[in-house]
Amino acid sequence: MLKFLSKPFRQLTIPASDREFYRSLKHILGYSPDNLEIYKLALIHRSASVIISPGQKFDNERLEYLGDAVLDAIVADFLFGEFPSGDEGFLTKMRSKIVSRNSMNQLAVSIGLPNLIMVSNGALNHQKYIYGNALEAIVGAMFIDKGFKFTSDVVINNFLRQHINLDELQAIEHDYKSKLLEIAQKHHVKVTFDTHAINTEKQSPHFEAILFWDENEIGRGSGNSKKEAEQGASKQGIDWLEKNILSNSDE
Amino acid sequence: MLKFLSKPFRQLTIPASDREFYRSLKHILGYSPDNLEIYKLALIHRSASVIISPGQKFDNERLEYLGDAVLDAIVADFLFGEFPSGDEGFLTKMRSKIVSRNSMNQLAVSIGLPNLIMVSNGALNHQKYIYGNALEAIVGAMFIDKGFKFTSDVVINNFLRQHINLDELQAIEHDYKSKLLEIAQKHHVKVTFDTHAINTEKQSPHFEAILFWDENEIGRGSGNSKKEAEQGASKQGIDWLEKNILSNSDE
Repeated sequence: MLKFLSKPFRQLTIPASDREFYRSLKHILGYSPDNLEIYKLALIHRSASVIISPGQKFDNERLEYLGDAVLDAIVADFLFGEFPSGDEGFLTKMRSKIVSRNSMNQLAVSIGLPNLIMVSNGALNHQKYIYGNALEAIVGAMFIDKGFKFTSDVVINNFLRQHINLDELQAIEHDYKSKLLEIAQKHHVKVTFDTHAINTEKQSPHFEAILFWDENEIGRGSGNSKKEAEQGASKQGIDWLEKNILSNSDE
Repeated sequence: MLKFLSKPFRQLTIPASDREFYRSLKHILGYSPDNLEIYKLALIHRSASVIISPGQKFDNERLEYLGDAVLDAIVADFLFGEFPSGDEGFLTKMRSKIVSRNSMNQLAVSIGLPNLIMVSNGALNHQKYIYGNALEAIVGAMFIDKGFKFTSDVVINNFLRQHINLDELQAIEHDYKSKLLEIAQKHHVKVTFDTHAINTEKQSPHFEAILFWDENEIGRGSGNSKKEAEQGASKQGIDWLEKNILSNSDE
């Protein structure tokens, strides 16, 4: 009853304490959110999590898990439509460029999300991808609040098309080897590649690269060219370094 | 005009040559597909791909890319609802059990998909996950034909709830180390773990395991216990073996 009044008067039904939050959120997302509580949850980093009872905590990690998967599907669908003759390898590569932690973090900053995130100061200094993770959680919240189609339209039209340049992205070839050599130089460590052809029963020539950080093997890669194999090994090596060495230093 | 007639009389509008395919598909999926062509495409394995012009081929790989992402989102959402107090680690683990290549392959067989797949005989002998991949492509086709909500309902109600037992799945702990030792025995190769505590500035104790296949390092893992670290290294090792050794043998 009188339901037709609800939309124009929505703001009147929002508690005074939430109106500022509602306005900021609406401004950032470009639409009127319905279930404010779920968006609030999406913005609580685990460093600021609310413990309800043992084993029960309120923070954005479950929503981040959900939003991450929803975002992947949205971006996969978006690229499927944008590149009707792009093959699955190309599409997969483009997708991982768009949803990379770096790119999501930048996107979160571009749309102005950081101001709304609840996080302890300590965590902000240590963890690099808080903003991008919160953006994923917001996508999860949006999906619960408004469904897939609506979320997909918002993500594509308000976020991706406004802030991501597909032509530029296409041109970027992630050069993991250069990045690795840079890290090595900074840490004064020698890196070497053992790269060699391997015999397989497959038709195409195949190479394998083994990457050593000082004397320790930290990555392997393979591919149809030496370059591809070394890129693969470098990517694995960077992942390993990020987990085991870079995350402990104060960068 | 006369649009209201279209549904009951749909079968009359399907070319005679497609009616058998339409019936089988409807039986397997549990609903009436609209755009038959997209489902046909989903069932063409690349070994049977149709080359239209240089660089343009018709097979199910693009749809598999799309369906894989859509399926991830559906399963993520499903588990989010089924386990309201499961944390993101648990949910992620459960999801990867459900969408694992093995589990998807089994699901494809359970719903009777193999009969419909177009594949060259040679490929069937060599590639283990053709059925599961085709199932992913079918999910991609369904998504294009009917949208996310519909696809999600079909996947959850007709596939997951009928063929996947969440309680059983929860009980399964993937034991990668046992699987690795099994493979090693079969190939008469000695595997060893170098597992040790590592000093980090983090609060919790941390272990690292390095896995050697003969003399070659093929995996690393880390975790809060030796067991966890060795499981991680074994998982990485199995991935490596699958890419580099097992895929070349005739199993």
